[in-house]
Amino acid sequence: MIIVLKQNAKAEQIEKLKEWIHHIGIETHVSVGQTHTIIGLVGDTTQVDMDLVSSFDIVESVKRIQEPFKNASRKFHNKDLVVDISGVKIGGGNFQIIAGPCSVETREQVTYVAECVKKSGAGLLRGGAFKPRTSPYAFQGLKGEGIALLEEAKKQTGLPIVSEIMNISHLPMFEDVDLIQVGARNMQNFDLLRELGKINKPILLKRGLANTIDEWLMSAEYIMSGGNENVILCERGVRTFETRTRNTLDLSSIPVLKKLSHLPVIIDPSHALGHSEMVKPMAMAATAAGADGLMIEVHNNPTCALCDGAQSLTPEEFDDVAKAVFQLRPFACKYNVHKN
Amino acid sequence: MIIVLKQNAKAEQIEKLKEWIHHIGIETHVSVGQTHTIIGLVGDTTQVDMDLVSSFDIVESVKRIQEPFKNASRKFHNKDLVVDISGVKIGGGNFQIIAGPCSVETREQVTYVAECVKKSGAGLLRGGAFKPRTSPYAFQGLKGEGIALLEEAKKQTGLPIVSEIMNISHLPMFEDVDLIQVGARNMQNFDLLRELGKINKPILLKRGLANTIDEWLMSAEYIMSGGNENVILCERGVRTFETRTRNTLDLSSIPVLKKLSHLPVIIDPSHALGHSEMVKPMAMAATAAGADGLMIEVHNNPTCALCDGAQSLTPEEFDDVAKAVFQLRPFACKYNVHKN
Amino acid sequence: MIIVLKQNAKAEQIEKLKEWIHHIGIETHVSVGQTHTIIGLVGDTTQVDMDLVSSFDIVESVKRIQEPFKNASRKFHNKDLVVDISGVKIGGGNFQIIAGPCSVETREQVTYVAECVKKSGAGLLRGGAFKPRTSPYAFQGLKGEGIALLEEAKKQTGLPIVSEIMNISHLPMFEDVDLIQVGARNMQNFDLLRELGKINKPILLKRGLANTIDEWLMSAEYIMSGGNENVILCERGVRTFETRTRNTLDLSSIPVLKKLSHLPVIIDPSHALGHSEMVKPMAMAATAAGADGLMIEVHNNPTCALCDGAQSLTPEEFDDVAKAVFQLRPFACKYNVHKN
Amino acid sequence: MIIVLKQNAKAEQIEKLKEWIHHIGIETHVSVGQTHTIIGLVGDTTQVDMDLVSSFDIVESVKRIQEPFKNASRKFHNKDLVVDISGVKIGGGNFQIIAGPCSVETREQVTYVAECVKKSGAGLLRGGAFKPRTSPYAFQGLKGEGIALLEEAKKQTGLPIVSEIMNISHLPMFEDVDLIQVGARNMQNFDLLRELGKINKPILLKRGLANTIDEWLMSAEYIMSGGNENVILCERGVRTFETRTRNTLDLSSIPVLKKLSHLPVIIDPSHALGHSEMVKPMAMAATAAGADGLMIEVHNNPTCALCDGAQSLTPEEFDDVAKAVFQLRPFACKYNVHKN
Repeated sequence: MIIVLKQNAKAEQIEKLKEWIHHIGIETHVSVGQTHTIIGLVGDTTQVDMDLVSSFDIVESVKRIQEPFKNASRKFHNKDLVVDISGVKIGGGNFQIIAGPCSVETREQVTYVAECVKKSGAGLLRGGAFKPRTSPYAFQGLKGEGIALLEEAKKQTGLPIVSEIMNISHLPMFEDVDLIQVGARNMQNFDLLRELGKINKPILLKRGLANTIDEWLMSAEYIMSGGNENVILCERGVRTFETRTRNTLDLSSIPVLKKLSHLPVIIDPSHALGHSEMVKPMAMAATAAGADGLMIEVHNNPTCALCDGAQSLTPEEFDDVAKAVFQLRPFACKYNVHKN
Repeated sequence: MIIVLKQNAKAEQIEKLKEWIHHIGIETHVSVGQTHTIIGLVGDTTQVDMDLVSSFDIVESVKRIQEPFKNASRKFHNKDLVVDISGVKIGGGNFQIIAGPCSVETREQVTYVAECVKKSGAGLLRGGAFKPRTSPYAFQGLKGEGIALLEEAKKQTGLPIVSEIMNISHLPMFEDVDLIQVGARNMQNFDLLRELGKINKPILLKRGLANTIDEWLMSAEYIMSGGNENVILCERGVRTFETRTRNTLDLSSIPVLKKLSHLPVIIDPSHALGHSEMVKPMAMAATAAGADGLMIEVHNNPTCALCDGAQSLTPEEFDDVAKAVFQLRPFACKYNVHKN
Repeated sequence: MIIVLKQNAKAEQIEKLKEWIHHIGIETHVSVGQTHTIIGLVGDTTQVDMDLVSSFDIVESVKRIQEPFKNASRKFHNKDLVVDISGVKIGGGNFQIIAGPCSVETREQVTYVAECVKKSGAGLLRGGAFKPRTSPYAFQGLKGEGIALLEEAKKQTGLPIVSEIMNISHLPMFEDVDLIQVGARNMQNFDLLRELGKINKPILLKRGLANTIDEWLMSAEYIMSGGNENVILCERGVRTFETRTRNTLDLSSIPVLKKLSHLPVIIDPSHALGHSEMVKPMAMAATAAGADGLMIEVHNNPTCALCDGAQSLTPEEFDDVAKAVFQLRPFACKYNVHKN
Repeated sequence: MIIVLKQNAKAEQIEKLKEWIHHIGIETHVSVGQTHTIIGLVGDTTQVDMDLVSSFDIVESVKRIQEPFKNASRKFHNKDLVVDISGVKIGGGNFQIIAGPCSVETREQVTYVAECVKKSGAGLLRGGAFKPRTSPYAFQGLKGEGIALLEEAKKQTGLPIVSEIMNISHLPMFEDVDLIQVGARNMQNFDLLRELGKINKPILLKRGLANTIDEWLMSAEYIMSGGNENVILCERGVRTFETRTRNTLDLSSIPVLKKLSHLPVIIDPSHALGHSEMVKPMAMAATAAGADGLMIEVHNNPTCALCDGAQSLTPEEFDDVAKAVFQLRPFACKYNVHKN
């Protein structure tokens, strides 16, 4: 960490700041320039509160040299993390497609879709039971009943299940959920993250719509610092000015994360783009860029042919995407896209 | 609501879509153009799920004409809402400054600051007890103890108190808090909003860092549709590419909100900008633009003169800002900036 | 085009608006709803000035149904455009890598790099002679001398050359440049675009840092409406809040553009990301997503081993990327990522 | 300037980098930390090319301490710049409203509007003759004829005139234009800026839609480093995700610029917001925040009462805004919003 001091900083003020830094166990190295004085912090600065340092009157700016995360950092975990989800592995060379309906609607729907995606090679079944919706008047999910329907589909197909938690008080309902998802809107719901750090179940942490990669890793750090090290990161697009896609899918987060962290990274093209016809090219792009997996929405409603979701694939379309992706995957491995 | 259909939409598909719309109690008006067919929805579309409509295969795009909020809409509440916070009023011509330390630290600090800001004319005391922090290693607030210290300052000064809630399970601790704040990161924590809709206490709802004004009003709608109509909106900056300020304070949200909604709007220049020297010009700008109040951070630490927060004002600086703002306020009223 | 009228629109005002629309050769279709009246425009609305329509007092909002571009639109040109650059083809199944140094520095540099990238399979040589730089004190390029050095490298290797124009008065110097590049900062330099529409040479149009895909296509329309139909689009990242990459590479622009337009689309991962180690995964991702080509910076400075650009690859690194990309390319074709 | 080196930097590489820095006349100060080595640059780093430094293989990141601009910097020009536009002053305590139609349309229109805004207190007349339009099919302005009509209005009213230049070859037509405007889309048209640096006429430089304040000041530096020091900065909104306003007006740019630079700052609320009813509150806000002036669109078309622009005020509305602003202005001065 480097602290740049204001031009008018007085010697006694600098002395007080240095004392405060030494007090928290960090050494200092002062360098006096023509226009500015700079204090370098020597030691483990992971846990130094940057805002607190900034709040000293004589500080002009503070710049981190070391990353502020440790549990989520590749520097401390050189080997890729492999997350085991009830026997299905993601990361460290293990690639999975998580597929299923956006919302769980009926027993028939979820079981049928589960069987379809399993045949096409999906390794896990997703389905929303608690749905975060912008409007209080929109459908909020089947809740406990939805989880129960997912569990039935799991029994029938053997696929581990993934579902989103919105409230820590719902945790008991998630006992048989194999991978718990934290949605984009809750990425900085720190109380929720902290509680998920205490359980013994892998967490799928989606990136917030307007969060930087560093903030995302800090949210992973919240979970991991509590003892739960099994975190999978899921990119689902960030908010920009572009309106042709729902969000802007940031695929460069893959190489950035692979460099900074050992955690697995998966991509959700369905939510990011909002249009089913863009899912295939973006799924292929994510795979080529070295993602450890994909999350894809698949829907089926044979009684109402109109109701295919704008962003959901039919089972047939999903089969086509899965085939392409599985053929492409060995290339990303062979050409060794990431040098860690 | 207008639905634009894809060019290849078949008559029977259009018929099915119309049936579905009629089924939810809305009439349709079909208009066949040279290249596109358009369905106009006639009736109260507030509660029509736009995503569900979009998910029909033949739909190219959907456009709302009516706003999707009702409780928060000026169309249904022509008169400005006046929120009464333990006797202190905001909105409908009532202007207040909420001031106090970012974090509650000690009894001396909070009581001293409370007395100072009261003398300068602040109507409410703010103080953070539960602090949402990006890093799990940063100071997370004094929690229950912080609330207790705020309550002491309230007893001593008579100022109603404002503090942020991060978790609905903490609600019992907020019994004597007069105005409960929902922070930017929790603006779309829908479970929290829903629970706050059931209580009988005013809510200060901050805008999310990357949320549109419409999403913000929809979050107010979550609270209000539960029965709690006393919501105050607080703009605190949005995330952009600019780095000279922490966030970009969107003061144009004031006239936009005044047109769309009857809820009071206050501005928090301290958090938005991150630099104390910008608080005064932005506080004056917000007042001139017709804000119903301000939220300003004031800090004092006489034992450590270094520790004035980068974005916090000293009591003396706050007094200067408050004087300017109170002198300016009658102008915004006289020149009647908003024509509702 | 749909015009939503304000609630208080009077019959005679509506009549005047309709007359104005009929006057420009468009028919109208009025639909009176419960809360709003809507006018649908029937006919070719490509050239209707949306701002002018918005400026009528009684208009609440205007929404395009048809795209506002025609020359650049796939609706009017179903077949992919193949651009021939002095014998080298891009688009319609033809894939090319454009490679070379960011700035032309010396004869040795550019000729050496040209030979290297040719061996690795690059189809065109790029090199900056006129450099748009944020600071007036930064190196602005070798200008005419740089173009001359590129031409020498072209003679020696046979590779067609690509270079950026910043000023239409420099056009005579670009006589032997095979593909003229318009940089991101000039994407809406409409006078420059109009002049380039009058020449008989293909144009590489980069996306502006904060421009939507629709604005980008409108800039292509400026060139094409002048008669020069040979436009290649180049995505190079958009500006967001993320700071780990220089810009955010929007690869979903590939499927969006493939749907809207028949123009070839290439991707420049070097400028978008700003770090050489991210070029390979993003080049592979772009290829898998169906890009028609790539633009990659390659640098070599044997006298100063320190001076490899942060975002430039060495010839060896480029060879590795090119191998991977050329192996990957048949997959994108085979799996037919775009259904036009 | 601080250079943070990569962890694996070798002594001989560091030596080479230091030599290169010394060679351009800057001293170095090396500080070896536990994990990173840091080089501080001592001397005038204004003209050090940050990209070039970044391009060294061993450099992890570079951070400026000094600003990269000098002519536009308050550090070198403590006193506010006063720009004299044919006798009308802006800056250093001089406040002006620039008003007039978006586009010059007819003699009657521009002369009538000029007389109206003069009566209301406007100090300068604006009018667009060359219009940058997203679509090549939209009205592009009256060009030379438009300038001529402005000049007639100037003769009749005595108001100095302001108009936008899009192409340096049009300069001869601007001989009688008193203040030449560079539009947002041309803020980084560096060739245009450089040429404007050679003339003896004040320049109004608008902020680009997605440009940082630092980039904006660097564009001013382009003009000023050529010898033309009379630059006025004009904020007109930046591009964000919000859609209720055309752009997001960044009023905090006022205090940021007042701190960094001595150049006058004016605000254009008409273009930023796109809705006439928001002009008044934002004009008042800008004035209260200490802007040196405003730019406001005023339109009148008595033959077609429908045609008031969505963002333009009528002369009556403008008169109301001007009254409020002129009454408010002494407050911003009295309360001395900026401490330079």
